Amino acid sequence: MTAHSESELAFLSIEQAARLLRRREISPFDLVEASLARIERWNSSLYAFLTVLAEDARLQARTAEREILRGRARGPLHGIPISLKDNLWTRGIRTTAGSKILTDFVPDADSDVARKLARSGSILLGKTNMHEFAYGITGENPHYGSSRNPWARERISGGSSGGSAAAVCTGMGFASVGTDTGGSIRIPSALCGIVGLKPTFGLVSATGVVTLGISFDHVGPIARSVTDACILLEAIAGKYPRGVMRPDHRKLRKNRPRRFRVGVPKEFFFERLDGEVRRLVEAAAKKFESLGARIEQISLPRLTGAIDQASQLVVAEINDYHESQGYYPARAAEYGDDVRGHLERGHKLLAVDYLRALPKRREIVEDFQAAFEEVDVILAPTSPIPAPLVGEPLVRVPGQSESIVRAELLRFTRPGNQTGFPAVSIPCGFTRDGLPVGLQLMGPRWGEARLLAAALAYEDATEWHKKHPNLS
Amino acid sequence: MTAHSESELAFLSIEQAARLLRRREISPFDLVEASLARIERWNSSLYAFLTVLAEDARLQARTAEREILRGRARGPLHGIPISLKDNLWTRGIRTTAGSKILTDFVPDADSDVARKLARSGSILLGKTNMHEFAYGITGENPHYGSSRNPWARERISGGSSGGSAAAVCTGMGFASVGTDTGGSIRIPSALCGIVGLKPTFGLVSATGVVTLGISFDHVGPIARSVTDACILLEAIAGKYPRGVMRPDHRKLRKNRPRRFRVGVPKEFFFERLDGEVRRLVEAAAKKFESLGARIEQISLPRLTGAIDQASQLVVAEINDYHESQGYYPARAAEYGDDVRGHLERGHKLLAVDYLRALPKRREIVEDFQAAFEEVDVILAPTSPIPAPLVGEPLVRVPGQSESIVRAELLRFTRPGNQTGFPAVSIPCGFTRDGLPVGLQLMGPRWGEARLLAAALAYEDATEWHKKHPNLS
Repeated sequence: MTAHSESELAFLSIEQAARLLRRREISPFDLVEASLARIERWNSSLYAFLTVLAEDARLQARTAEREILRGRARGPLHGIPISLKDNLWTRGIRTTAGSKILTDFVPDADSDVARKLARSGSILLGKTNMHEFAYGITGENPHYGSSRNPWARERISGGSSGGSAAAVCTGMGFASVGTDTGGSIRIPSALCGIVGLKPTFGLVSATGVVTLGISFDHVGPIARSVTDACILLEAIAGKYPRGVMRPDHRKLRKNRPRRFRVGVPKEFFFERLDGEVRRLVEAAAKKFESLGARIEQISLPRLTGAIDQASQLVVAEINDYHESQGYYPARAAEYGDDVRGHLERGHKLLAVDYLRALPKRREIVEDFQAAFEEVDVILAPTSPIPAPLVGEPLVRVPGQSESIVRAELLRFTRPGNQTGFPAVSIPCGFTRDGLPVGLQLMGPRWGEARLLAAALAYEDATEWHKKHPNLS
Repeated sequence: MTAHSESELAFLSIEQAARLLRRREISPFDLVEASLARIERWNSSLYAFLTVLAEDARLQARTAEREILRGRARGPLHGIPISLKDNLWTRGIRTTAGSKILTDFVPDADSDVARKLARSGSILLGKTNMHEFAYGITGENPHYGSSRNPWARERISGGSSGGSAAAVCTGMGFASVGTDTGGSIRIPSALCGIVGLKPTFGLVSATGVVTLGISFDHVGPIARSVTDACILLEAIAGKYPRGVMRPDHRKLRKNRPRRFRVGVPKEFFFERLDGEVRRLVEAAAKKFESLGARIEQISLPRLTGAIDQASQLVVAEINDYHESQGYYPARAAEYGDDVRGHLERGHKLLAVDYLRALPKRREIVEDFQAAFEEVDVILAPTSPIPAPLVGEPLVRVPGQSESIVRAELLRFTRPGNQTGFPAVSIPCGFTRDGLPVGLQLMGPRWGEARLLAAALAYEDATEWHKKHPNLS
């Protein structure tokens, strides 16, 4: 075996690692040990993992290696260490969903995603930290500690899949699977400078996921590159409708359209934007233009008026779940203050408000559908601001005095959950303070193949994804 | 022309009247004048019509007659006087929906139903009285007077299509079209001893109907016989899915299955039943048996548990409509006390209650679907009690001390609105006090042809539909 430093091993792409494994230049043990060493070193300050499966990961590595030696590698994820957000059921492994209520919950079955990833030959390192019950976008957690941003540890890594993003960004595993009900994959990926994909609603099974909002919950990959995200998606995706092009990480470059039509929305997505975020996202649009894309202004005329009302729908769905499970109000004292507050307010939401919100959701879907008649992808910021400080309740935003962190972070990702259309966040630069900024690309329903091809075109032309935080 | 008494003319079946018209033994004028004479005589004590179109009906009769003389009769409804419930838009004719808020509302377009009936050559006599905004099952109306039961004028004719039932039952027109959101066609038909059909949800267009509960509203015929109801349905129905047998009044007897399977539900429909209603409905089941039907006990196991919760859904939908129209709470003072009270309570319904009710509705649909795997029609009472007194808030029911009239009347008709499956009420006898009792037959989705064939088999073997109230 060639000598590789721990850091070299930890930051390999999945394709590179798979190639080295296939050639037996490295073994799954090397990858597992590199990942575990980093977890050991930094998890206590980053709060990325809630459960580390060190011994179990070594056992999985043994099995993976045996299969490789027999020439039975299963695919690109064979022997690759990954993590799962702690709201994905894992048989025999506690699944807290970041909550006190489920602190001792050990599922007797795997989520569909956990089962598919086990079948892919990947190695499960552990379960990652998250906002309690995924009901929050900061990743702050009163029960287990708040996951920290590896680029500035006094800042949030975002949420709710904040542990997954912090882990993947620091080489504690190659990738992770998170969930996204309002932005919970894309926001932490953006704030940590990595790639997070919220696939089309229903493409990845949510069976065995601790529900947040039943018609808004998405499951998807968090990774360090577009290709790695695509490899994970291939492993966990269900069936596409007939005639739809499936994403294939080996063909993303080949199938790239000659001339992408990239839509830049006139409404909503470029309002109340941090100046540095605006600069970087506009530069990304220019980069697309230099790559031959046609940039078009598009209109989503009803979005601004509809988005707040439509967001009531998920609030009602979340309360429905927590109340029907007997968690709320029976065990109200066991929630953190923020989530309990959301549930208190959500309980009071009126049925008429719910019904009035339903047509608003349809308006949003229609606006996006109309836009995707004109363009292949829509380009926007993932978050209007870079990572705020841990515990910061309010942020200053242009054109407004102050705004609640939570509402600001979610603003641009919510539409993707309202529509169920796929959206990916990829890194597009850093602020002067060194904080990563995310570019959000959105596509039409089942449009992952083309969406990821566009994302890869940008990634191939930039270096942002190659930067890693300097941990000490 | 042969001489016919007013009463003979007024109680002809539609087929008989059409035959006499075709042979020119009578003219459309004779039918209109007979109907108008009866309206003139009894409407002031029955409160059946809110608007009588005497002159306009005579003009329509002239047109209808001219077409007949030219040999251009349009079909079985050509020249037949009918009425429409006053929540069906009629162009240039005020449409109050029984409310004060719409007391001066004159639509600039016809409802789909009004247009179709005009095309059929039928003659519109007027618009019938109803429970305010159709939000009530008694037909009591604080603004226009309560429609009265022609069999006992101190009693309700039922609602919300109470005026239509009182009119059809007394020969003030041959038939009417009503709406049914919780039983509003079937209940007044049962209490007045006539035939009321709630078709499959969506079969008859609700365009141009003053909305009550958008996913529960049905439009359907009220008539004096199964064949008359079928003739009306043919005129107003939209398209059936491919491969489904359409009801055809000329083929109802021919297409009658040799051996009907009639299901008698074990749960829900025979609980808390007035003794006389029970006796008559059980006698009806025996009659079916004597006609060669196989009577089978069927189970609807989840209905009792689900029906009350599922009924929250329509409450929320009704509030959604009244609030989005700006009627409530802005014009709360203009509602009658009962409807305002419903809206006050409905406004407070929580979104979580709404969401919790959704799966209950599905349970009801599934239970009925399973039952219709076993049987062709389900037999039950239409109402657990005969017509209560006007103004009677509470009724005595077996096994309970007292119960609210409204809730009792609706009990057995609500499931048909939850499922959207067709149901017809036909007369099945009289109490010792001379009050009509209704038999409810229910069928599977799009099952009108077979449902009406079963109803007709019973009607052919009984004489109940031939009795008319003795007005003085």
